[in-house]
Amino acid sequence: MTDIYVKNGFLLTMQGEGVGSIQDGAVAIEGNTIVAVGKTADLDKEYGGAEHVFDAKGKAVLPGFVDAHVHTSNTLIRGEGQDVPEIEWMLKTQAPFGPHHRPGDRLLGSALGVLEAVKSGTTCFGEIGGNMAPAAEKVFGPSGVRAHLANTINEIGPGSRPDPHKPYIFFSDIGERKLKESIEFIDEWEGAFDGRITTMFSPHAADMMSEELLLRVKQEANERGMMSHIHIAQGGREAIQINLRYGTTIVKHLDSIGFLDNTIIGAHCHQTSDEEVALLAKSGMRYVSCPASIAVIDGITPPLALYLASGGVSAGIGSDQASGNNHHNMLVEMKVAALLNKCRHTDPTVLPAWKMLRIATIEGAETIGLGDSIGSLEPGKKADLLLLNLKVPHMMPIITTPVPNVAPNIVYSARGDEVETVIIDGNIVVRDREVLTMDEEKVMEDAQKASTAITESAAEDFFKADSYLAKAVKKGLL
Amino acid sequence: MTDIYVKNGFLLTMQGEGVGSIQDGAVAIEGNTIVAVGKTADLDKEYGGAEHVFDAKGKAVLPGFVDAHVHTSNTLIRGEGQDVPEIEWMLKTQAPFGPHHRPGDRLLGSALGVLEAVKSGTTCFGEIGGNMAPAAEKVFGPSGVRAHLANTINEIGPGSRPDPHKPYIFFSDIGERKLKESIEFIDEWEGAFDGRITTMFSPHAADMMSEELLLRVKQEANERGMMSHIHIAQGGREAIQINLRYGTTIVKHLDSIGFLDNTIIGAHCHQTSDEEVALLAKSGMRYVSCPASIAVIDGITPPLALYLASGGVSAGIGSDQASGNNHHNMLVEMKVAALLNKCRHTDPTVLPAWKMLRIATIEGAETIGLGDSIGSLEPGKKADLLLLNLKVPHMMPIITTPVPNVAPNIVYSARGDEVETVIIDGNIVVRDREVLTMDEEKVMEDAQKASTAITESAAEDFFKADSYLAKAVKKGLL
Repeated sequence: MTDIYVKNGFLLTMQGEGVGSIQDGAVAIEGNTIVAVGKTADLDKEYGGAEHVFDAKGKAVLPGFVDAHVHTSNTLIRGEGQDVPEIEWMLKTQAPFGPHHRPGDRLLGSALGVLEAVKSGTTCFGEIGGNMAPAAEKVFGPSGVRAHLANTINEIGPGSRPDPHKPYIFFSDIGERKLKESIEFIDEWEGAFDGRITTMFSPHAADMMSEELLLRVKQEANERGMMSHIHIAQGGREAIQINLRYGTTIVKHLDSIGFLDNTIIGAHCHQTSDEEVALLAKSGMRYVSCPASIAVIDGITPPLALYLASGGVSAGIGSDQASGNNHHNMLVEMKVAALLNKCRHTDPTVLPAWKMLRIATIEGAETIGLGDSIGSLEPGKKADLLLLNLKVPHMMPIITTPVPNVAPNIVYSARGDEVETVIIDGNIVVRDREVLTMDEEKVMEDAQKASTAITESAAEDFFKADSYLAKAVKKGLL
Repeated sequence: MTDIYVKNGFLLTMQGEGVGSIQDGAVAIEGNTIVAVGKTADLDKEYGGAEHVFDAKGKAVLPGFVDAHVHTSNTLIRGEGQDVPEIEWMLKTQAPFGPHHRPGDRLLGSALGVLEAVKSGTTCFGEIGGNMAPAAEKVFGPSGVRAHLANTINEIGPGSRPDPHKPYIFFSDIGERKLKESIEFIDEWEGAFDGRITTMFSPHAADMMSEELLLRVKQEANERGMMSHIHIAQGGREAIQINLRYGTTIVKHLDSIGFLDNTIIGAHCHQTSDEEVALLAKSGMRYVSCPASIAVIDGITPPLALYLASGGVSAGIGSDQASGNNHHNMLVEMKVAALLNKCRHTDPTVLPAWKMLRIATIEGAETIGLGDSIGSLEPGKKADLLLLNLKVPHMMPIITTPVPNVAPNIVYSARGDEVETVIIDGNIVVRDREVLTMDEEKVMEDAQKASTAITESAAEDFFKADSYLAKAVKKGLL
């Protein structure tokens, strides 16, 4: 028997080259799988008696969003690190808070980040971090979302970075331990929670480990038919280190050692020349761009449109972290991504709405290696989808000719609260805008308490670091 | 007796240089005027017995947003004009719909635009258009919002523009009539609806009228102590015309004829060199930037930060129109404005959150000439303010030290639905996210009906114009 049947909706299936729209469309779900997609009139007879029937009249029905590069664990310091020079963000606004996080705090942050994201339609999280097992067990698993996770591997330890202008000191024992833990994480968690948790490798960044270990991680991944998710060309500190060690740029270095191919998910890539972006695209590397986060932190539009125009195989977008971007909201992210890229190229045709929707769904899924199972509405795919209310003032009127405006309105006008229902892996996770799998009040309350403890305890260190932002606070501007 | 008392809130008063924050703050309102602003503990005794008491615990309280350049009348074709080359937007995606609007349709669009805007915190509309009297009477007045309006004046009539590469043919009788109607509009509507409707002059743009009439309009405004709101450097067509007529650029031309001073509100100004922006700033011209709209339509980041850095006296932002930008939402507009400008200058310190909030409130009010009466929370000002819920996942946690994060979270994470209460001119216009002054369902329904009639009737003309967007539709991409 059919478990869930969604009917009468404006379907954006992502089948074909564009958004694959079907008016008066329906989707049938059995277990965790989509079994039929088509016109309501054609499907009603067979699936109308499903256990749960959703009437999607006046609603868009589309695949859940894939947030392809995200660190939900940074959510407890939302709003503490904006509007500072690039060089200060990590060292003067993020670092002072790090040591004041207590064990378990990052999980509370992660729960808050997942809560806000799922309410605005994110169904899959491409998250990498220091130790993902507790997050998989306590946050991603129980909340019902899909997560593609990796433990980051590096050789950085206490005293590694006494002077940013000299080569970092690497600790090979730390690298070995992290690689081992990473493999243990993969062995334990791949396929957990009915397959909602999947895994990858993550060499942290090329400046934070030896070339040997970097290539070994890639080899371990390749031997398992898995992907490696890495930060590339993400800041001035990285550029300095790579130049000190190898006398070249990060992209040229990674290319020269044969690291770049289509098993690599490269995040950011914004401190790059146009030629380097072309090199990345031609290498087969898959690209995750975090437009809003990098615009806030670096004042740079990452080369999403350029990568695609240069022949890049597949790109997704990510919200990165709430301590930079400030929120996990793929609807606003799509608008920001399109507008920043249009302005980077002085070309309003760049990244049209239909393409942004694909990047946030099917192409994002392909980028992180899940394109076969999620990202579109078609029979055989996992049932990750959302219902988005169009009958609100800012999404009206609904127009079907000459331009079907559901896609442009979702990209350029939706902002999150239109998302009413979210189904992940065939389970109803959000209903009437309420998350059924989490205690929303408790998540917010726990996060607030932990955040207050962290920020009060870190305040002295923060002001000692004397950032641009600390000066603004002292002046009373905020 | 006090009519309204708001207490226990995170006040962003906009007094002083920054956001003028007061924790545990309160605002008291009598009639249409703010009578007290301060700590709740200090105000409770005198004002606690007010007729309406709002407990703003966990909420931000701030001045209503000033949308300083807006055309709500274009809302019925939302989503019909994105992702096309700049040269096509007006001629191939907007023009085909124009003649299919029936009398009264634009008012229905305007009502929808006002509805969505007020729900996301806009309290004042700087709107210019062909004939604002019906909108003042039927939309802005009855909906309870504040509006600063002007009829646009130009000398364009049938046959004025047979060839965009030859000088337009002006009809002085049309110009005379529009100037006369503009003055009549001002005489009739200035101060209407208890002072919520105020007026200005609006020479449409320098390419659409003779130099003589342009200067006469400015003189008429100056004689009345009023301002003139004009589009400047907004597109390739304007540049061609000005060069044909005067052999120079629009900015140099306006400077040479003595048009630019601090009675001029210049909108857009994005087709300009850095030197021309400096010239505009130094002239005293007040600037309204529409970042998202111009990014969508032209693929250009308008020079908001540059104007201010060049010594510009006062700037606001505007949402322009739903047929370009796609929505009227000042919260998303602030984020987009900040991010685009950071990337224009490769500098993340550009337009910090506190400055964006000022631009969207007090400085926007100053820009359109209403800075003495609205834009900040202080005794004597008109009571235009909003309560914004911070206890939602994407605005949490609330942090007071080291960085008070209410301002950055509003700019970088709020998106509209956090706005719970909107008070305009001392009246409660939005309560529990519901607009009390409009029949929301009817506004949406009427707009939908009119839009369907317009778009179905215009479809043939739209496809005949054969825009980039029409081709995408034909390919089935949307």
